[in-house]
Amino acid sequence: MSTPAYNDLYQRHQRLHRLAHLQSMAQWDQSANMPSKGNEARSLALAEMGGMLHQLATEPQLKGLLDAAAGEPLTADQRANLREMRRVWMSSNALPQSLVEAKSLANSRCEHAWRTQRPANDWAGYLPLLRECVRLAREEARCLSESSGLGLYDALMDQYEPGMRAAEVDRVFGDLRSWLPQLIKDVQAKQAQETTLRPQGPFAKEAQRALGLAAMQLVGFDFEAGRLDESAHPFCGGVPEDVRITTRYREDDFLPSLMGVIHETGHARYEQNLPREWLGQPLANARSMGLHESQSLSFEMQLGSHPAFAQLLSPLVTKHLGAQAAFEPANLNRLLTRVHPAFIRVDADEVTYPAHVILRYEIERALIEGQIECEDIPALWDAKMMELLGVDTRGNYKDGCMQDVHWGCGLFGYFPCYTLGAMYAAQWFAAIRRSRPTLDADIAAGNLAPVFDWLRSNIWLQGSRLETPDLVKAASGETLNPAHFKAHLQARYLA
Amino acid sequence: MSTPAYNDLYQRHQRLHRLAHLQSMAQWDQSANMPSKGNEARSLALAEMGGMLHQLATEPQLKGLLDAAAGEPLTADQRANLREMRRVWMSSNALPQSLVEAKSLANSRCEHAWRTQRPANDWAGYLPLLRECVRLAREEARCLSESSGLGLYDALMDQYEPGMRAAEVDRVFGDLRSWLPQLIKDVQAKQAQETTLRPQGPFAKEAQRALGLAAMQLVGFDFEAGRLDESAHPFCGGVPEDVRITTRYREDDFLPSLMGVIHETGHARYEQNLPREWLGQPLANARSMGLHESQSLSFEMQLGSHPAFAQLLSPLVTKHLGAQAAFEPANLNRLLTRVHPAFIRVDADEVTYPAHVILRYEIERALIEGQIECEDIPALWDAKMMELLGVDTRGNYKDGCMQDVHWGCGLFGYFPCYTLGAMYAAQWFAAIRRSRPTLDADIAAGNLAPVFDWLRSNIWLQGSRLETPDLVKAASGETLNPAHFKAHLQARYLA
Repeated sequence: MSTPAYNDLYQRHQRLHRLAHLQSMAQWDQSANMPSKGNEARSLALAEMGGMLHQLATEPQLKGLLDAAAGEPLTADQRANLREMRRVWMSSNALPQSLVEAKSLANSRCEHAWRTQRPANDWAGYLPLLRECVRLAREEARCLSESSGLGLYDALMDQYEPGMRAAEVDRVFGDLRSWLPQLIKDVQAKQAQETTLRPQGPFAKEAQRALGLAAMQLVGFDFEAGRLDESAHPFCGGVPEDVRITTRYREDDFLPSLMGVIHETGHARYEQNLPREWLGQPLANARSMGLHESQSLSFEMQLGSHPAFAQLLSPLVTKHLGAQAAFEPANLNRLLTRVHPAFIRVDADEVTYPAHVILRYEIERALIEGQIECEDIPALWDAKMMELLGVDTRGNYKDGCMQDVHWGCGLFGYFPCYTLGAMYAAQWFAAIRRSRPTLDADIAAGNLAPVFDWLRSNIWLQGSRLETPDLVKAASGETLNPAHFKAHLQARYLA
Repeated sequence: MSTPAYNDLYQRHQRLHRLAHLQSMAQWDQSANMPSKGNEARSLALAEMGGMLHQLATEPQLKGLLDAAAGEPLTADQRANLREMRRVWMSSNALPQSLVEAKSLANSRCEHAWRTQRPANDWAGYLPLLRECVRLAREEARCLSESSGLGLYDALMDQYEPGMRAAEVDRVFGDLRSWLPQLIKDVQAKQAQETTLRPQGPFAKEAQRALGLAAMQLVGFDFEAGRLDESAHPFCGGVPEDVRITTRYREDDFLPSLMGVIHETGHARYEQNLPREWLGQPLANARSMGLHESQSLSFEMQLGSHPAFAQLLSPLVTKHLGAQAAFEPANLNRLLTRVHPAFIRVDADEVTYPAHVILRYEIERALIEGQIECEDIPALWDAKMMELLGVDTRGNYKDGCMQDVHWGCGLFGYFPCYTLGAMYAAQWFAAIRRSRPTLDADIAAGNLAPVFDWLRSNIWLQGSRLETPDLVKAASGETLNPAHFKAHLQARYLA
């Protein structure tokens, strides 16, 4: 059967994938290797490539090809691929060039100023710059909404979590909100009775690196298709064929790096196991940011902070950092599951993290929909922090509403993905446990194959074949259900 | 004054430079970092970019723009830049696409087979593959000769050493050939009287790396604009704004890595000091392969193997590898200047190296000009090795004519650059010494600024402003003169 339009599109995406490979690697290198004087040339090179990729993704012939391919005799996978091709095309074409440029300028100005304004607690200085970012994000939402027919906030969120809607987020976050503050108090009360030994540093960087590599090995990272390096802000980059994860080391504490490496390995294995025969096509892309986060949290939280997993981690820690009483499995697990409401999202534990996200979701949605303005943020922040976590942020902008740079970078609609990921991860593990009732014993015995096999066939190898809600249902038998996350937190923290 | 055609060309070269940046970094990464499974995707990505750069360099408008720019009111530098733009354009357009593809296929087949045929000493298996590479190189020479008006071999060599002609190589290599074999014998006789202590290994890789970094610091590498990493085959890559050099480590001997690092730092400083305001334009390119080699050899041989330099190196070696009698300056210098005629070019010392190059030049030139065929190579190789170095290679193809992969990769006309570089370097140091009679004392005192200042202003900052012979004359007051190389070898090895 002849599918000329589809074939043409296929070749174009292959080409985009190959060129984007060079872009990804240069971005990884910029964070992991590049010396300071290389930055200007690198930024110009990346901008040139960004412009070229945008040009290739918006060529005028594409619309006709997409329409023609829709009438061609395609297989189910090809049809799914075509759906994703159209998604890429829509998102590349939705914004006028002038808006893309204005956003880029405003966000880069705001991000740059934020680096000094945040430490100076300078909300007054930050406010006008943030206002411009919000103005442009509203304009972006309007454009995306017009081309997609979605609501304003939905249109933004759809870029990161295709198919997810604010109504659905309201449903699941509403559920969470109803029991989370009390659960946090209950866990704190319980943990107040426990004694936890602190590890005694310093921990040499080289030893931590060796420990990180051993942990990656334990959780199945493919070292023939990726690497571990160092960067100021840990991330998972590179390409599916060669995944580059990074970490940073603190000599006084090894757990942030160790658990960070396990977290990034979750992202990495998703990328390393995307459907190989489709690589280069949109069908082979990871499904969404929330699903990506569900993998890193499956590794770091569901598995990595599981009491049985501490039995696997403990000998590795002892081997690389020497013997300490604090490295005993039970103590190690207590270290990994301590709950403490505090200011900073990125440092938050598994239990309080969702509160940080709910707060940001409520504020950013109201901002985009025009119900509030930027000057309303601090008061809302203070009220919600007190309500959800009992933490007082009044006047403390730098540890309050200025702590994240997402909004200053024009990223609205992204925050929910973190907690959607945590909920998906709990749902995956509930499903794994149903099919494998011996799961806890498996983990204690170091048999992690049941976990990885399930994730591989249900998530990784699916790529973007299904839209997110369909994938969730196909994988776990039901749509997103916050009860699994609640049950997980209760079992782990209150049992 | 209005220069629209020149400005258009200028912008196009800026764009090529930015895109080539990503290509260079991906190539460096491929050698220094990339895990095995990343290779296929990387190769496809690089091929895609290579095709795109070729397309941009051969766009049909370019001819008209080059012709129009020639009539515009340009400054002297702009005119030199235009001359180099035309050189890039000529070399990009000289070969028909079918020949480029046939060469790429034949060379990649031959290179791949060579990897197993060389260790197996399988000349008979290698011969038909090499024959095809020679056939295509002759075809390439014919095309380049037609478009440039140069002779066949000159046309090939002009790609690497613009302006250098076989007649000139004959002149200087003829001179060399007349005294080198006897000089080698004289040096051997002299060194037979000397006692040299061998360093006692093993030398840990981390210590060698620290030593290499200290040596780079000593010879002025800018660590804010480059890095040292590890690869199977050492090279200098990256971009002028961010130069990536590599080395490899042997635990039983630290000198190959140490001197290799100093060699690559010579290449690196040339790149790091190309005229900054012109970066992105052909004017800012390093002038030629021979001039590039003159920088690495200025660092490794002229400076690095200078007896006074051993006084600077010795404390660094002791600091990083511990104290040994063999690390005393005089002994260190003896280790660095030992002369021993042997089979392998890449392992050859400063004195015997030119013999390896002369032999290859004579054979490859006769091959390209059709005076000999591939089957004639072994007998010629054996005869010339015996004549020049007194070494018997009969039947030993793997350490004879199969040791280098240049011809199997389609690289003809490149070999002379190695020895031209050695001769240029001797000529630079003769010029430096004329302007700075205290040079030897300066080096002993660790004052290397006179050397670097001279190289910076006379070579590095010149970029491609002048053609090679003009640059040589402007820098040193005369055209290439092999007497300086002879005087250098006599002073260093026979005084």
